Amino acid sequence: METATHTQSARINPKIIVPFVDSVRRVFATMVGVQTTVQRPHLKALAAPTYDVSSIIGFSGDIVGSVIVSFQKEAAERLASAFAGMSITADMPDFPDAIGELANMIAGGAKKHLGTLASITVPSVVIGSGHVIARLSDVPCIVIPCQTPVGAFAVEISIKQIKPARSNQGGAQ
Amino acid sequence: METATHTQSARINPKIIVPFVDSVRRVFATMVGVQTTVQRPHLKALAAPTYDVSSIIGFSGDIVGSVIVSFQKEAAERLASAFAGMSITADMPDFPDAIGELANMIAGGAKKHLGTLASITVPSVVIGSGHVIARLSDVPCIVIPCQTPVGAFAVEISIKQIKPARSNQGGAQ
Repeated sequence: METATHTQSARINPKIIVPFVDSVRRVFATMVGVQTTVQRPHLKALAAPTYDVSSIIGFSGDIVGSVIVSFQKEAAERLASAFAGMSITADMPDFPDAIGELANMIAGGAKKHLGTLASITVPSVVIGSGHVIARLSDVPCIVIPCQTPVGAFAVEISIKQIKPARSNQGGAQ
Repeated sequence: METATHTQSARINPKIIVPFVDSVRRVFATMVGVQTTVQRPHLKALAAPTYDVSSIIGFSGDIVGSVIVSFQKEAAERLASAFAGMSITADMPDFPDAIGELANMIAGGAKKHLGTLASITVPSVVIGSGHVIARLSDVPCIVIPCQTPVGAFAVEISIKQIKPARSNQGGAQ
């Protein structure tokens, strides 16, 4: 649905993106010990597929929507292992907990800098290659592609602010 | 895996289940016009697969966790069509909106009768046969299997109350 380039850039609000980019860098550097290269954010086409393992965090309150952290399967296993300090494969019960916790830290870290009162849910982790996660069509989805030495992942942000920021970040919408 | 029967019954709290059963019946009878047979709720084994199309609603506040409404693909298409009053197939942009809205009405209707202050997120709709949705392992998942003349679906409830119910829904904050 997003076709024109000017529409894309107009819709990518740096006040939303920057806290997530910072949070991804911080979580992966400190908690996983892996260098992450963050690539240029872009708008996602409606219902394009994700990677193989996706952790979904819901937002409610002044911000509504969801944030998905989606990994190539091998990257997910290797990053979960680095995070947990032990070998974790996708068939182990610890796997969704580790992947969910990474997403939780990314979303929780970003939330603090969004300047609004929002709650985040516990993560739901979807495992299955070729799955598609569709959000409600009135909220655009911004993808932050990320590269690590062990594979790719992406942070997909599909949230909208329904009340203005409250803190001294100031400014409406 | 859930083995002992007494553990299962101890964990299936009717105060949580009944509002969802009532809400499913009401939403499908009034909004979809389809008779739904609700079967006996049971605990779900960790990381067992869902059906083909799953709508995830997150809870935060006094209740945390998620509720998933998961459909066989054909049932999802036919129920979405009955709900929207026009033919909808899984490849159409209206499909996740319709499926998400059904889940939103089920969770929203149940929430009113849970007697707590909780927020629910907008739905995320996962499309892909054989996907598995893992929740954090400390919250058990109760499945309410449902049959309709056009196929099966299930409501999977994986929520826990972190504050006691507030009597007449009034209360602080």
